[in-house]
Amino acid sequence: MVNEKMSHLPLSRALPRGFRFASASCGLKKRGHTGSLDVALIVSDVPASAAAVFTQNLVQAPPVVLSRKHVKESPDSMRAVIVNSGNANCSVGPDGLVASRSAADCIAELLGCHENQVVVCSTGVIGVPLPVEKILGAAPELASTLEFSPKAFDGLTRAIMTTDTRPKQTAGLCSIGGKTVRIAGCAKGAGMIHPNMATMLAFVVTDAAVAPRVLDGALREVVGRTFNCITVDGDSSTNDTLLVLANGASGANEITQAKGADYKAFVAALEKVCKTLALAIVEDGEGATRVVEIEVHGAPDDRDAKKVAETIALSSLVKTAVAGADPNWGRILAAAGRAGVQFNPDRAEIWLGGMKMYGPPKGKSYSVALPLDEAVAHARLLEKNISIVVHLHQGRGSATMWTCDFTAEYVHINASYRT
Amino acid sequence: MVNEKMSHLPLSRALPRGFRFASASCGLKKRGHTGSLDVALIVSDVPASAAAVFTQNLVQAPPVVLSRKHVKESPDSMRAVIVNSGNANCSVGPDGLVASRSAADCIAELLGCHENQVVVCSTGVIGVPLPVEKILGAAPELASTLEFSPKAFDGLTRAIMTTDTRPKQTAGLCSIGGKTVRIAGCAKGAGMIHPNMATMLAFVVTDAAVAPRVLDGALREVVGRTFNCITVDGDSSTNDTLLVLANGASGANEITQAKGADYKAFVAALEKVCKTLALAIVEDGEGATRVVEIEVHGAPDDRDAKKVAETIALSSLVKTAVAGADPNWGRILAAAGRAGVQFNPDRAEIWLGGMKMYGPPKGKSYSVALPLDEAVAHARLLEKNISIVVHLHQGRGSATMWTCDFTAEYVHINASYRT
Repeated sequence: MVNEKMSHLPLSRALPRGFRFASASCGLKKRGHTGSLDVALIVSDVPASAAAVFTQNLVQAPPVVLSRKHVKESPDSMRAVIVNSGNANCSVGPDGLVASRSAADCIAELLGCHENQVVVCSTGVIGVPLPVEKILGAAPELASTLEFSPKAFDGLTRAIMTTDTRPKQTAGLCSIGGKTVRIAGCAKGAGMIHPNMATMLAFVVTDAAVAPRVLDGALREVVGRTFNCITVDGDSSTNDTLLVLANGASGANEITQAKGADYKAFVAALEKVCKTLALAIVEDGEGATRVVEIEVHGAPDDRDAKKVAETIALSSLVKTAVAGADPNWGRILAAAGRAGVQFNPDRAEIWLGGMKMYGPPKGKSYSVALPLDEAVAHARLLEKNISIVVHLHQGRGSATMWTCDFTAEYVHINASYRT
Repeated sequence: MVNEKMSHLPLSRALPRGFRFASASCGLKKRGHTGSLDVALIVSDVPASAAAVFTQNLVQAPPVVLSRKHVKESPDSMRAVIVNSGNANCSVGPDGLVASRSAADCIAELLGCHENQVVVCSTGVIGVPLPVEKILGAAPELASTLEFSPKAFDGLTRAIMTTDTRPKQTAGLCSIGGKTVRIAGCAKGAGMIHPNMATMLAFVVTDAAVAPRVLDGALREVVGRTFNCITVDGDSSTNDTLLVLANGASGANEITQAKGADYKAFVAALEKVCKTLALAIVEDGEGATRVVEIEVHGAPDDRDAKKVAETIALSSLVKTAVAGADPNWGRILAAAGRAGVQFNPDRAEIWLGGMKMYGPPKGKSYSVALPLDEAVAHARLLEKNISIVVHLHQGRGSATMWTCDFTAEYVHINASYRT
C-alpha cells in the first residue's frame, strides 16, 4: 500500500502527461515482501529535459558512470530510464559497463532513439556480475506494455524496492503561467543491507517545460534542502541517483530563467516532492521507529550549523537515546561539542521533543539542566516525530536535518548472516 | 578479576616505586556490578614530571579545565590525583569549577603541597551538580590509607569504573641505563551511557625520571599510535583524560632528550602500556563481542590512510557485519569510497579475517569479488579478533585502527530508559 500521507494528491489527479511506465519480473530478485517486480521502464513520448545528481562515493557503479555521461550529452532530449533492482552492477570489473551499455542500446533500439537518450539505473547486491540478458529479455515486454496510468507508475515504484518495507511515491500540481503542471516522484531507500545494497534511487517526472540548465540549477538547489539533509546511517552508497525529467507536455510556457514567479512555483513543487520522498526514506530507514528533525540555530554560519546538525544526526548515542525515548540532552550537547564548530557550551540551549532541557535558568547567564518531569518527558518522546532544537547563540547560521532512531532491529537486519 | 591477558607482568613485580594509592566509597555511585568504590587518590612521594592529553570536545568539564591548568603550571612537581566516578561534574554552571577547585585544595592541604600540584578527574553523569562534600569527607580517609601495593592499585582501577564490565590495568618493566624502571597503568572506558557518561580516564605511573618536556613529547607520540587509534562509537566525551606521572624513584638516570637508547626504551614501554589499555577499552566497548584491527596500506599518505581506516572503523554497516560474522567486503569498499581519499576502486584489494575477498584475479588488471567458501569464511569470522586489511595501491601511506563490533546489545544498553 502506498503511504497515503506522502501523496499531496492521488496520482490519478496529478500524473504528468506524456510519460508512460512499465514494470516486469525478470528473475533478478527473489520473490519477497516487495513482490517479484525487478525491472521497469520510464518513457517520455517526446524528448525531455533531464537533470540528475549522483552518489559522491568514490566507488561509482557503471550505471552511474554511464548515466552521468548520457545526462551530460543529452540534457535536452532524454527519452527513457531503464532500471533494475536485485543487482547493483557494481565492482564487477569492465563487464559492468558493458552490461549497462547493452541495456541502454537495447532500449534505444526499441524506442528508435540514440543510446545517450537513455538513463540506466541499478540497485541491489554489489560484486555479483549482472545477468544483463535477463533485462534484455524483458525489454520487449516492457516496451509493449507501457501505460500512462497510476497503476503503471505504482509498478515502477514497486520494481525498484529492495529492503524497503513500503513503496514511496508522491504527486502534486502547480501553476505555471496559468497552466496546470503535474509532478510525480518515486524513491527507494533506505540503508545498505547484506550482502551489500547500493542503494538510493529516486525518479521525478513532470510535464512542465524547463530549460535543461534551469532544471539542473533547480534540482541542485532543492537537493541541498531535501535529499542532502537526510541520513539513515551515514553510509553513502555506490549507486545513489536522483533524476528529474521535464517533458513540457503540459503545454505551459518553458521556464528559461532561474528567477521569476514561474521558476519559484516550479521549485516549490519540486521541493515538496523531493522533501516528501526524502522523509519517506528516513521514515522507512532500516529498523526505524521514529523520525527526528534536528534544527540548529545561532551557528557562526549555515555551513557550521549543518556540521553540528549532521554530527547530532549521525551520533549513535543520540539515535539510541531517541529509540529509548530517553530525554538525554547531554548526548546532544556532547555531539555538538565535537562537530568542530566554535560556540560557548555555557550559553547554548537545547530543546528535545518541544521541551527545553538545557539553558540558563531565570536570572542566570549560564546554562544548566532545567527542571524536568521525567515521566512526562519520556511519554512525549514516545511520539513518532521527534524534534531536536539546538541554539548555539554564536551567530546567525541555521540548518535542518532529518534522521531516524537507531534500534536493535537495525543491528538485527544488518548483522544477520547471509544464507 | 583483572583480565590477565592485559598484564605484561603481575603488578607485584612491576609496581612503580614511590607511588601510593587509596580508594573509598563516598556515595556517588550506587552499588552495582563494579562495587561501590567511587573515589580514589594517587600520590607520588616526591614531585613527579606530569604530561597529559585531554578531550578535544568543545564541551570540557571543569576537572579537565582545572587539570590542564595545573599540568601546565606544575609539569615538574605533580604530587597527586584525586578522581571520582559516578558524576562527571560537567555542564552544571560555575559551581562545577568551584567543586573541582575545592577537591584540589583539600588534597593539597592534606599533603602539604600547592593546589596546582594536584590533578582532578571526574567521570559519570553529565548535568547533575557534583556533591563535592562527599569527596571532601572521604579525603582524610584516603590520605590515611595510602598504600604501595598491588591491592591498592587494584582499588584505584575499580574506583574509576562505571559501565566497564571489567577492570583494565597493566604493568611492565624496562631498562634505562642499566637500571630497572617500572611502569603501570589503569583505564576506564568505554562508550557514553545514560543519562550521559563522560567517559574515558587513564592513568599511567612510572618510577622513571623523565624531563617534563620529554615526557610530554613521548606521550603525544605514543597517543597518536594507541589511544587516538581506537573508536567504540565515535562519540568523544567531555571528560576524557590520559595522565602520565614519572617520579624518578627508580634511581635511573633522567631522560632529558627525545632521542637515544634510553628514550626509545621508555617510549616502547609507555607504548606497550598505552596500547594494552586502549585495546582493553575497545574489547570492553559497550555490547562488543569482537575486536577489529583495521590496516590501510597504499594510501596517498599516512593522514589519508588514517581517514580511510577511521571511516571503516566508524561505519555502522561494517561494524554490524562483523557482529554477524558476515564476509561483507562490499561494505568495507563502500566505506573506503566515502572517506574523501583519492584511489582507484578497480585496483584496490581487501582482506577480511585473513581471507582475500576483493582483488584482481590471476592475469587480470582489475579487482572483482574473489571465490570464497562462505561457510569457511563465516566460521573464521566468528573468532574474537578480526583483521581487516585494505590496500589502495595509490601511494605509501598506511595506518592502523582498532574498533569493536556493533551489536544489538549496544543499542539495548544505550536505548534503555532511565528509571
